[in-house]
Amino acid sequence: MLGARCLLRAVRFCSSVPCPRHKPSAKLSVRDTLGAQNMSGERVTVQTFPIRYKERHPLEYLRQYPHLRCRTNILGSILRIRSEATAAIHSFFKDSGFVHIHTPIITSNDCEGAGELFQLHAAGKIKVPEENFFNVPAYLTVSGQLHLEVMSGAFTQVFTFGPTFRAENSQSRRHLAEFYMIEAEISFVDSLQDLMQVMEKLFKATTMMVLSNCPEDVKLCYKFIAPGQKDRLEHMLKNNFLIISYTEAVEILKRASQNFTFTPEWGIDLQTEHEKYLVKHCGNIPVFVINYPLALKPFYMRDNEDGPQHTVAAVDLLVPGVGELFGGGLREERYHFLEERLARSRLTEVYQWYLDLRRFGSVPHGGFGMGFERYLQCILGVDNIKDVIPFPRFPHSCLL
Amino acid sequence: MLGARCLLRAVRFCSSVPCPRHKPSAKLSVRDTLGAQNMSGERVTVQTFPIRYKERHPLEYLRQYPHLRCRTNILGSILRIRSEATAAIHSFFKDSGFVHIHTPIITSNDCEGAGELFQLHAAGKIKVPEENFFNVPAYLTVSGQLHLEVMSGAFTQVFTFGPTFRAENSQSRRHLAEFYMIEAEISFVDSLQDLMQVMEKLFKATTMMVLSNCPEDVKLCYKFIAPGQKDRLEHMLKNNFLIISYTEAVEILKRASQNFTFTPEWGIDLQTEHEKYLVKHCGNIPVFVINYPLALKPFYMRDNEDGPQHTVAAVDLLVPGVGELFGGGLREERYHFLEERLARSRLTEVYQWYLDLRRFGSVPHGGFGMGFERYLQCILGVDNIKDVIPFPRFPHSCLL
Repeated sequence: MLGARCLLRAVRFCSSVPCPRHKPSAKLSVRDTLGAQNMSGERVTVQTFPIRYKERHPLEYLRQYPHLRCRTNILGSILRIRSEATAAIHSFFKDSGFVHIHTPIITSNDCEGAGELFQLHAAGKIKVPEENFFNVPAYLTVSGQLHLEVMSGAFTQVFTFGPTFRAENSQSRRHLAEFYMIEAEISFVDSLQDLMQVMEKLFKATTMMVLSNCPEDVKLCYKFIAPGQKDRLEHMLKNNFLIISYTEAVEILKRASQNFTFTPEWGIDLQTEHEKYLVKHCGNIPVFVINYPLALKPFYMRDNEDGPQHTVAAVDLLVPGVGELFGGGLREERYHFLEERLARSRLTEVYQWYLDLRRFGSVPHGGFGMGFERYLQCILGVDNIKDVIPFPRFPHSCLL
Repeated sequence: MLGARCLLRAVRFCSSVPCPRHKPSAKLSVRDTLGAQNMSGERVTVQTFPIRYKERHPLEYLRQYPHLRCRTNILGSILRIRSEATAAIHSFFKDSGFVHIHTPIITSNDCEGAGELFQLHAAGKIKVPEENFFNVPAYLTVSGQLHLEVMSGAFTQVFTFGPTFRAENSQSRRHLAEFYMIEAEISFVDSLQDLMQVMEKLFKATTMMVLSNCPEDVKLCYKFIAPGQKDRLEHMLKNNFLIISYTEAVEILKRASQNFTFTPEWGIDLQTEHEKYLVKHCGNIPVFVINYPLALKPFYMRDNEDGPQHTVAAVDLLVPGVGELFGGGLREERYHFLEERLARSRLTEVYQWYLDLRRFGSVPHGGFGMGFERYLQCILGVDNIKDVIPFPRFPHSCLL
């Protein structure tokens, strides 16, 4: 029974044809209001199977049918690759001696004060007063980093791989309201160099494993949605990733002949157009940008104490096609530095526990996060992030 | 750097002592309002490290310090075992040919109408009207099953391992507001026997892997929190799990000399006291209870069409110490049966997409879910579920 692959095969190669061994259990036009909802949440009438045999539907069309699109060969391939990449990431960290931690999804931390949070309320007939299930306001996590730092103080090397959330009103091809992040924290790291080594290794090892474990699926993606991607990826894999400082990056942008919508200037965050230019400037090799202005980064980034142009030991990895893929840095492990930064942002009260981690035995440490969907976009050349996750959630859309 | 294990060792064996190589970066009594919150969310004053060297604090005491308790050897062991079990489960499914699926956390499905849901609202300064981020009411998932069924129609065997949520006002030692579930769906399964085989295999294979991969950690748990657990677990592992029908279970309970708070009766759900009795009655071997009354189970369970005592092909696994560990069953794959059940519950409109799965090529299939924290409680003999998860969330408590 478990070995029966007929359905799998049917799906893989004929995709939209119902398996010949098992006929649909009802006539195809019984009702007139069946089916999925369209982009604005209205119900779409589906009287017949909306995917045609041997027709190559645009990914945007398939997105309307999240319950059926996995039966096409292209979504089948993408989701199998997603599964392989998940396994590869778990085994990379396990083989490197990391402890896996389930950081919490519900949190009372308004982490980084980003303001783009989902807040929770208990719905329905429960006895706890609605607003007050946890006694404190509760949110969906935007990052497991601070919780991972708790754990890196006990297990040296830890990682998490789970969902994170942004209530951002963005319809861009790189943003989702619910997406997956791989985050790691490592004790006894005292240079960005060490961190970047792990990031590059993670990217390359995972990709090599995916390429060797599902070559057919990858080939199908390249053939139908990203011609030329094979060479672009090989180019990334065979070269050492580059490293430039934020200051150098701004210099490069200032010297560019291109006109940017946002004028590049020291102290201002890099925009998507800047990221794109930098990657192209670097010959389409992934490039680490390090040492950002202190004012641009959250309170926990380690102070570089470097004079007038005050920077922190933060690092982003920019990759072709996607832009920012990793973000990370060394964490401020020195109690008094951290205390001062928190006081300045009036966060001391909220982050007492985070200060405790420094009071009671702290070590130099650092970590990073990688957006999983962006990673898949990057290796497969998929243009829209909504096509590399089984059930995409974004403003105005939460199908199923 | 990555190889430095000094902190790890310090934690493992001396637990509460700061690593001698790295002194705390501040004096221990700088402030007087530092520290964690207590159970009712108030701030607890922590002036010195709250965990004493060589003292064995009760787990309940440690629960107040979620940011520090992982530095004790007992929580260290439990969380390392959790990490190993996570890896073991992933590799069990991968080796058995399952595709891993990230089922959505945010869903517009008020799945099963359970009513114990967390609802979401966008907070902060976003531009989408607050209540309306997704255009539809959005909740945290209570189960990934229905979404997995979508995928089992494409990939034959699929699994998910992620967080699930209940806004239940329960302070019991077996319930959390946020907990992890392993769920699987398998196509071409047409008997409960086949499903139960996978469930038993999953339990035993994962446990064997945990026991062989972290014997020291397991030994520490048995020594300090669950003496005798080693023998109890071996007893479970070396015996075949038992199978009784719901009807037999009720008969056994009726014949029992014990007085129950809830009188056992056919058609009424098994209570914790009943589950406990049944497991004991079965000689503390895990026991599958199958074929429950149709009225007790959700609309998607497959109708057994068995006359006056109308049952469905549902199965629960009861284990010593914990009670219900797995729940599962065959799914109603027949269009007209499902349509009728949905119509009776006035759910037809909402589950059009679920009916679509049957209209457009359906096969016999089934699946199950296992509570991950309960699994850890069961193998380790940990009494309270709050001690097997890094950051427990329950009514009135969302620390950090």
